[in-house]
Amino acid sequence: MSYIQKVSSYIEKNRSEYERLLQEMVQQPSKAGGESGIQDIVEKRLSEKGFDVDRWELDYEALSKHTYFCASRPDFTGSENVVGVLKGEGEGKSLILNGHVDVVPEGERVQWEHDPYSGAIRGNKLFGRGATDMKGGNLSALLAVEAIQALGIKLKGDIIFQSVVEEESGGSGTLAAIERGYTADAALIPEPTNMTIFPKQQGSMWFKVHIYGKSAHGGTRYEGVSAIQKVHTVHEAILQLEQERNERLDSPLYEGNPIPVPINVGKIAGGTWPSSVPDQVTIEGRMGVIPGEDLLEAKAALEAKLAALAKEDSWFAEAPVEVEWFGARWLPGEIEDDHPFLHSLIQAYHSYKNEDPVLKASPWGTDGGLLTALRGIPAVVFGPGETSMAHYPNEFINLDHVFEAAVIMAETILQWCEVASVNESVH
Amino acid sequence: MSYIQKVSSYIEKNRSEYERLLQEMVQQPSKAGGESGIQDIVEKRLSEKGFDVDRWELDYEALSKHTYFCASRPDFTGSENVVGVLKGEGEGKSLILNGHVDVVPEGERVQWEHDPYSGAIRGNKLFGRGATDMKGGNLSALLAVEAIQALGIKLKGDIIFQSVVEEESGGSGTLAAIERGYTADAALIPEPTNMTIFPKQQGSMWFKVHIYGKSAHGGTRYEGVSAIQKVHTVHEAILQLEQERNERLDSPLYEGNPIPVPINVGKIAGGTWPSSVPDQVTIEGRMGVIPGEDLLEAKAALEAKLAALAKEDSWFAEAPVEVEWFGARWLPGEIEDDHPFLHSLIQAYHSYKNEDPVLKASPWGTDGGLLTALRGIPAVVFGPGETSMAHYPNEFINLDHVFEAAVIMAETILQWCEVASVNESVH
Repeated sequence: MSYIQKVSSYIEKNRSEYERLLQEMVQQPSKAGGESGIQDIVEKRLSEKGFDVDRWELDYEALSKHTYFCASRPDFTGSENVVGVLKGEGEGKSLILNGHVDVVPEGERVQWEHDPYSGAIRGNKLFGRGATDMKGGNLSALLAVEAIQALGIKLKGDIIFQSVVEEESGGSGTLAAIERGYTADAALIPEPTNMTIFPKQQGSMWFKVHIYGKSAHGGTRYEGVSAIQKVHTVHEAILQLEQERNERLDSPLYEGNPIPVPINVGKIAGGTWPSSVPDQVTIEGRMGVIPGEDLLEAKAALEAKLAALAKEDSWFAEAPVEVEWFGARWLPGEIEDDHPFLHSLIQAYHSYKNEDPVLKASPWGTDGGLLTALRGIPAVVFGPGETSMAHYPNEFINLDHVFEAAVIMAETILQWCEVASVNESVH
Repeated sequence: MSYIQKVSSYIEKNRSEYERLLQEMVQQPSKAGGESGIQDIVEKRLSEKGFDVDRWELDYEALSKHTYFCASRPDFTGSENVVGVLKGEGEGKSLILNGHVDVVPEGERVQWEHDPYSGAIRGNKLFGRGATDMKGGNLSALLAVEAIQALGIKLKGDIIFQSVVEEESGGSGTLAAIERGYTADAALIPEPTNMTIFPKQQGSMWFKVHIYGKSAHGGTRYEGVSAIQKVHTVHEAILQLEQERNERLDSPLYEGNPIPVPINVGKIAGGTWPSSVPDQVTIEGRMGVIPGEDLLEAKAALEAKLAALAKEDSWFAEAPVEVEWFGARWLPGEIEDDHPFLHSLIQAYHSYKNEDPVLKASPWGTDGGLLTALRGIPAVVFGPGETSMAHYPNEFINLDHVFEAAVIMAETILQWCEVASVNESVH
């Protein structure tokens, strides 16, 4: 009997227990600042399973000094990370399993069929905020390790199970885990990919561009310069930069994607009065950061493109646009195309599903970006949730996918961390 | 001695009295809803000078049913018009002198050198909110009539001196005077023109255009349609309409004006998140209305232009833009090029100043538009204030201009209303 069969059999027998555990996790309304309940569950579980458990509150003061710090909250009181380490027997490769427990707000109750934190199971679906993003994926990863334990297997390499906070608002949980010294030879992030493998994860940064005009009365608008009209020139330059950046991309992971790393302008506001020529408009957007690209390089590219407008339009020489970087940003993450951990994951998928997995570059970043950028840890994203569900009302996860992902992850772990010994008496 | 000389001489002798009167007027902070103080002064003065005085509070209920009603306030309690009629001896042409007493808010105190309602005189300038817009002009008109009275002259035609409220927020004061039955053969509006004569006054209306897109995540922006990008197409169509409308204008009054009747887009807001494709943007603007043009015609022209976008861009067929008319509007006003009242004013100006006046089409509307549109009263705008001062901190009026305008207005009145008799014993 192969390990895949044994793991599947373990899951088959214990499926209802894990469904209940996922229900309990989803029933915790773990929005930013309210993660204690879910971390209690995770801490207890990891302790019971023999992990060395480390639980600590994030140090806002210390973290906020970090170059890559990014948060929308003014303090982290009560926001605690839980990391469980399952030491290997030695001489194996280590693996970080990193998943966040914070969820985005549930929005309007009326848009939800069930209570947003019901964890209700209907057929094959488990409903609730965070089910897909990403408590379902976290359960897959935990179950993968527990199944390996249940089979009496000791691994050579260490497993570092990171249950982090603050992913949705900038990654301070993972940053704190990095700063605490946790590292590994590879990382798996079970964010919702709908069982697709993302060896490259697009980063992103938010920007504002302030565009200036010259005020005048609307009845003599020819005496002014409309900042609203100037937005078009700026937007065109942004789209041109987007095109130039995307033309350079040649990984097969980007094939068929019309704009692999887009620059989106999402918000606009300007002018103060219908009958005045607007002298100021601000646009806000999201610039995709290419896997492997430095954030500062990406920033410089946008700034240079917009500074160059002064050469084409003398107005911009007189009143240059101003670029401001603000709010959230996610670092791009990646794993080399021929990295053995990626190979293990692909092979595990193929062995279990009897088909090749879909490999793509993700249109969004994860905490894996911090691991790659700060500690050079190759990171791959693969999980059972569906991106299209994340952040929406009536979020649910397909339970079959949770258990399928667990089998694939277990097989991947066995390949990567390697089996040190098997105690056949355990089952 | 000509009448011009006699009027000038009267003003010369009584200049300090009128400066004090204007000071008192400017010292009244007559913002919308607070016009009682200034109307007390006007009422008293008109009564003393033998006008039949009519003072009444605006009837919000009745006015709000009117097609041309437009107000930013929910009631007019305490907002009273004052109209003084100086009956002529008969068989003469009548004249409305219409000026508003409401002023726009003074804004930030720190931006003013003197108290905004000081009425401080420094050299030739009288400072204060409303000095130029338009208490200075009102004083010129009042003084013109008082000078004629002081010379012992009885006119053939009636003078209807209208001291109205609510001009700054939609013209309900003048609308109320019209509804009360006041009419005349011509009207002079001493709004700030800097001694230029405006035989045509541009009207204006405010509009919103709601532009729709299709939401998507910024990382896959190609799955959405950006409402911000669609704004450009809408704005281009608006500018094209502006050009078409202005190409039709052929009055010499528009000569040298690059865009006599502009359509200004003054405000923009849309999108909710930097990393989402924006599915909605609203622009707000001011559409100039051509003198002689019906408001409904102008509205239909913009609506048709934007509806036609669906033919050029299938997105607009799927998600048509919506046009909304809101907020303020001013009707266009005018007087025929060869109208004898205009001729009287031009001639009076020339006789006094020994030079031709500048005639132009104004880039903004006045309450004269209501008089022209509702009662067919030819209206001309001419006053001592400076447009560039209106609504700004440190507003002032040039006192010499106030008294010069008064002489020109007196001479115009004598020409238009005609002298019935002169009682030489008066002076």
